[in-house]
Amino acid sequence: MTRLFNDPDDFAAEMTTGLAAASARWLRAVPGGVVRSTEADGPTVSLVVGGGSGHYPAFAGLVGPGLAHGAAMGNLFASPSTQQIHSVAAAADRGRGVLMSYGNYAGDVLNFDAAQARLRDAGVDCRTVVVTDDVSSAADPALRRGIAGDLCVFKVAGAACEAGHDLDGVERVARLANERTRSLGVAFDGCTLPGAGSPLFTVPDGRMAVGLGIHGEPGIDETDVPTAAGLAELLVRGLLAERPAGAGDRVVPILNGLGSVKYEELYVVYGAVHRLLGEAGLTVVDPEVGEFCTSFDMAGASLTLLWLDDAPGELERLWTAPCDTPAFRRGAVAGHHGTTAAPQDTAAGAPAAVLEGSPGSRACGARVAAAFDAVAAVLDAEADRLGRLDRVAGDGDHGIGMQRGGRAAREAAADAAARGAGAGTVLRHAADAWGDRAGGTSGAIWAALLDALGTALGDTGTPDTAAVAAAVRAAERAVAAAGGAAVGDKTMVDALVPFATVLDERVGAGEDLPVAWADAADAAGRAAEDTARLTARLGRARAHGERSVGTPDPGAVSFALVVRTAGEHLC
Amino acid sequence: MTRLFNDPDDFAAEMTTGLAAASARWLRAVPGGVVRSTEADGPTVSLVVGGGSGHYPAFAGLVGPGLAHGAAMGNLFASPSTQQIHSVAAAADRGRGVLMSYGNYAGDVLNFDAAQARLRDAGVDCRTVVVTDDVSSAADPALRRGIAGDLCVFKVAGAACEAGHDLDGVERVARLANERTRSLGVAFDGCTLPGAGSPLFTVPDGRMAVGLGIHGEPGIDETDVPTAAGLAELLVRGLLAERPAGAGDRVVPILNGLGSVKYEELYVVYGAVHRLLGEAGLTVVDPEVGEFCTSFDMAGASLTLLWLDDAPGELERLWTAPCDTPAFRRGAVAGHHGTTAAPQDTAAGAPAAVLEGSPGSRACGARVAAAFDAVAAVLDAEADRLGRLDRVAGDGDHGIGMQRGGRAAREAAADAAARGAGAGTVLRHAADAWGDRAGGTSGAIWAALLDALGTALGDTGTPDTAAVAAAVRAAERAVAAAGGAAVGDKTMVDALVPFATVLDERVGAGEDLPVAWADAADAAGRAAEDTARLTARLGRARAHGERSVGTPDPGAVSFALVVRTAGEHLC
Repeated sequence: MTRLFNDPDDFAAEMTTGLAAASARWLRAVPGGVVRSTEADGPTVSLVVGGGSGHYPAFAGLVGPGLAHGAAMGNLFASPSTQQIHSVAAAADRGRGVLMSYGNYAGDVLNFDAAQARLRDAGVDCRTVVVTDDVSSAADPALRRGIAGDLCVFKVAGAACEAGHDLDGVERVARLANERTRSLGVAFDGCTLPGAGSPLFTVPDGRMAVGLGIHGEPGIDETDVPTAAGLAELLVRGLLAERPAGAGDRVVPILNGLGSVKYEELYVVYGAVHRLLGEAGLTVVDPEVGEFCTSFDMAGASLTLLWLDDAPGELERLWTAPCDTPAFRRGAVAGHHGTTAAPQDTAAGAPAAVLEGSPGSRACGARVAAAFDAVAAVLDAEADRLGRLDRVAGDGDHGIGMQRGGRAAREAAADAAARGAGAGTVLRHAADAWGDRAGGTSGAIWAALLDALGTALGDTGTPDTAAVAAAVRAAERAVAAAGGAAVGDKTMVDALVPFATVLDERVGAGEDLPVAWADAADAAGRAAEDTARLTARLGRARAHGERSVGTPDPGAVSFALVVRTAGEHLC
Repeated sequence: MTRLFNDPDDFAAEMTTGLAAASARWLRAVPGGVVRSTEADGPTVSLVVGGGSGHYPAFAGLVGPGLAHGAAMGNLFASPSTQQIHSVAAAADRGRGVLMSYGNYAGDVLNFDAAQARLRDAGVDCRTVVVTDDVSSAADPALRRGIAGDLCVFKVAGAACEAGHDLDGVERVARLANERTRSLGVAFDGCTLPGAGSPLFTVPDGRMAVGLGIHGEPGIDETDVPTAAGLAELLVRGLLAERPAGAGDRVVPILNGLGSVKYEELYVVYGAVHRLLGEAGLTVVDPEVGEFCTSFDMAGASLTLLWLDDAPGELERLWTAPCDTPAFRRGAVAGHHGTTAAPQDTAAGAPAAVLEGSPGSRACGARVAAAFDAVAAVLDAEADRLGRLDRVAGDGDHGIGMQRGGRAAREAAADAAARGAGAGTVLRHAADAWGDRAGGTSGAIWAALLDALGTALGDTGTPDTAAVAAAVRAAERAVAAAGGAAVGDKTMVDALVPFATVLDERVGAGEDLPVAWADAADAAGRAAEDTARLTARLGRARAHGERSVGTPDPGAVSFALVVRTAGEHLC
């Protein structure tokens, strides 16, 4: 379990402060993460990596000459927000373009894509290579999650930047590295996030979950804990069955500990891995044994194979090229010098200016702020339940993400309202704060929803019933555009669409807003119950060993909670 | 807990095999441990480090250019044997002398000193600098244990070797580094050795042991788990109070995780450490945060300060000099190339030749072998109990060490007897095997005891009662010479001396050997009960928070067990 923290809410920020203090030779903090504290002799393409925190050395431990130029650091196990990624990428850009690379998780894709769009709008050439090395996470290679194989893709891309490749060239080798990288992991026990009352997940004593994700995402099998040799066989056999097209007979094995499976155990396993790879006719190149992608003190390990060509070639040259970062170093990197840029504070800086609203809109803004206050209290109370629901199908961070988002929105809304903002500005400030502090998929979606509501309502006049219904419709469209989910996918959209539809109907039929809103909230609640029931069924099926294809998230449940609570204060 | 292993008895050897396969760029296996697989352009002084396994990257992970030349790798948490250390040092020596450096533990001192004596006998100039950084382990700096501060002493000494210093020069800076290195550690929970039924030690839930050793040696205080900032304050305050004489205002902080306190937590703590050092007017140089001396998955952390001079000087230059090892790298080391030396096997090689004994001595040798068979069975059965006794005062490895020693001696004795050896050779082969496989303090002492017995009895004639009593007296003298303990120190000597005395008396009074031996064994048993009672009292006192000055070991208990069992088969 994680024992050392101050206020759990400050953990990620304090971790970044400590990392920057300890690693000033390599990096400095910027809003949203870290960038190199060194400068190359000439500008190169910039590699920006990132993801949730809690996986050190992924991602910030891999920033330095020959590897990444910056890392966007989300909250614990939560995607960095769009703002965070944009801030890091903008600080890392040297005018030759940015390659973004990260593990394939919905929240990361959403936020990195949005940041990429912003960079492109500003004229920065930006590409993305998503890492998909975890063979157990999906049959289709394109849908797989990214785990310890991140390192292979980052290292090859970083070396290509260092070698002076243009953005096309860096993107090409990064994509090739991802196609040639395969990982398989196992876990013996879960981890507990700072301040959490219970582990994020557990594995029964004496058992081993095969293919369990680095946030506890369900695996594909459960067995008794094997011997070290038995585990080596399972991992090597599983990966040899997934040999990528075009791969030669030279491989880089990376045996990774997730946190509390330690070096001596890993070396015992590695001895057998090395022998088995040799017996399979493969030549082992430059192996790595250690901790490259952890999950706090999760008890688990993974094996990654980076498949090279038959003769030492481009990938091998890039993999073995020098690099110098806090957590991964090899050889000597020439042509870099420290920079004197003053370390930037990680705080968000001065508050955004507020344009004062009309008297009616200001009154409405105050009611919106009161609604956020109530919503934050409800999300505080329900965070544990939402986390448990999320654990059945996902990584268990939904409760804590909604809680963080709600608290941040409450503060931002209260501040804006106190400074005379209208309803639109209160909502848009709340949207930014929610997205920035919650991170993850739900953070990005809620930010889009609130921002669209605020834009629709504006800061002048008192919004009437029809204006509210229209604003909700606009929010519905914004969520659909951001998330890509449809009704029936068992996400927040399953509750949002009936809510907007019923609200529209009742308002169209002449109902007052309080009645119309209550009816709409009831419809959202019924939809949420459906997804909750499906989630419970999924949990039981998993407990019986079934591998379900459905992965409902608790977004509908939390959405219904929020609209019911907000309605009591808005209307 | 440690989950991944095959046969626990093979763990250390298999770990070395895996390490050598994964780290061939830096090192290769030799009997007893590992040495560099690279060769410097010109010969330098060789730095040989070592200790028990289970602390990776200490010690084998620190072998490579700019750091150590070889590491003697003992069994888990047990000192390497004299033979192991000698083998590694002989392989590492390049004709300019050997500096040995290791943490201050009784077993390591005993075995490294014996290996040093052998090297000096063979004309190799050899010096020793024992690391004593753990401020909580004793008030007298010379008596303190060595923990994560090992790295500071090794790094400075290795850099001095690399810089071409002669042995005097390397010894001088290593001694200076040790005088300037102070560490303080805490633990939240223990670790379980491969295949063990229970943890080596535990810390109550929600509590923190202050100053607990890396093998679970008792600490100086127990508190509730503090906040990260609270821990930083405790560690910094404790170390500032121990500022060494002659230290300047520049310090290197090393925040070390013991195994399952992970990087994110360490960085949160480090942020506060960094701030507190600055507030104390100190300049932080080149900090390190990570895992440098672990204890499997023990939950704990330690802070080390290496105190430099006021202006950047010799120590700082040596600390920051380049090095390249599996687990610790910085900068680029010039002037080294890989060697083509065939990897040596870690097996002990061909069996030693046996000189056939006289018929009477051969019969006696067969009885000795039968006695070892019975002793090994008893030690198997009692290993857990001996381990528990040892855990009160020491590191809990006595049971497993005696078990390993007994098994190895049984095999060696049976083999020698089958090949026609006399009693003396059977005992001396058993002595070598016991010392080599058991490691630790008790391994070295039992090897000395059995070797002296064998030398005294010889391989000709049937030893009579008087010869046996005289041989036991010789063994008693050998143990006193090797261990330096006296009666009353609550060690094995407390049982050995009454055993030898009573045996002498009874034999002198004309008793037959069976009766005399049984009386002597009874005397040893009574002495052992006294130390066991003291140990139990110590355990209760510690449980009530007392810090006892006595540290009885279970050597008397196991000695009494062995002589009682052996007597039934010898006489």
